[in-house]
Amino acid sequence: MRLFLASTSPARLATLRSAGIEPITHSPRVDEDAVVAASGELSAHDMVALLARTKAEEVADRLGEDIDGLILGGDSAFVIDGVIHGKPHDPAVAKARWLSQTGRSGVLYSGHWLIDHRNGTSNGGVGIVTHAEVHFTDVTEAEIDAYIATGEPLAVAGAFTIDSLGGAFIDRIVGDPHTVVGLSLPALRNLVRSFGIEWTDLWNR
Amino acid sequence: MRLFLASTSPARLATLRSAGIEPITHSPRVDEDAVVAASGELSAHDMVALLARTKAEEVADRLGEDIDGLILGGDSAFVIDGVIHGKPHDPAVAKARWLSQTGRSGVLYSGHWLIDHRNGTSNGGVGIVTHAEVHFTDVTEAEIDAYIATGEPLAVAGAFTIDSLGGAFIDRIVGDPHTVVGLSLPALRNLVRSFGIEWTDLWNR
Repeated sequence: MRLFLASTSPARLATLRSAGIEPITHSPRVDEDAVVAASGELSAHDMVALLARTKAEEVADRLGEDIDGLILGGDSAFVIDGVIHGKPHDPAVAKARWLSQTGRSGVLYSGHWLIDHRNGTSNGGVGIVTHAEVHFTDVTEAEIDAYIATGEPLAVAGAFTIDSLGGAFIDRIVGDPHTVVGLSLPALRNLVRSFGIEWTDLWNR
Repeated sequence: MRLFLASTSPARLATLRSAGIEPITHSPRVDEDAVVAASGELSAHDMVALLARTKAEEVADRLGEDIDGLILGGDSAFVIDGVIHGKPHDPAVAKARWLSQTGRSGVLYSGHWLIDHRNGTSNGGVGIVTHAEVHFTDVTEAEIDAYIATGEPLAVAGAFTIDSLGGAFIDRIVGDPHTVVGLSLPALRNLVRSFGIEWTDLWNR
């Protein structure tokens, strides 16, 4: 049983690999901003659910006959003070976020959509959104500057990672740590099993 | 500022590397069973604190003049139903543990001891024990057999890992996920800072 990953996230790919799964990756051709704009006001929960599904379905529609297996789409968003924080891109934006989130906590939402696409045809899809609380340590301004100078926080939702340099600045989570990275392994296992497929049949590393 | 790791754990080394730190590793020459036996009845908390300190001090005593930097010792134990579970080693032991812990939870304790050994002499040590709740999913017997057949659970405390194949079988933690892997990065950061050293000065990758 082969898993096809409809996501360009290096963190999702690394998470699957660490869990024994080497997926075949296809970049979804989705204009995320346009999808969200067309949907009106969305909660973080509904936004990541929509984008995960849109990514998986785009890959299924475009490459359908060539795909014999399962197609997974994923998306993540970080919420603090009721505001969704995406990728900061700009160092000044990242610094402002960190100055405001140091010593505080937020919630990371990860959306998953899995399509049963065995034998080149879609036999339906299932999805789930997971979330985890993330508690930041008190971080000094010098640490924030050093962290941002590495470039790592610029390209990730919430301006932090837990699986690399940012790990030292998060002292506690409540939930599945893989949700924070962007792909909940136990949630994906449940989706896989809902199609009558054994999780361990995906192990191919 | 250089970090010396007094531990043979591949998971601790990988955790430090992911956090930007390439340590110099020295295997501590410590008979852990003898140290524990000589100390009478110990809680998991006190056991990992003692072993972490013993490992760091053994490396400091043996290699002292050659070490200009910080020496970190670490140890971990898993407790479920009030019983400390170490490495199962044997597949039958691992299977019995998993059959009893599926769908339930336990606590992973990680001990840390850090010696300020700048300029080849010991200027004191500090330690902390962290813990995190680990909640297992319901796992089927077929999954347990497949997991044990990989060999991964045999050499780790509690017969599980969260950072590789076992990640799909843990649906929730409460605490620092790196504590579960065996080395709490935010705790280590606090120990480093207690010596007046900036955490980011350890980044060397």
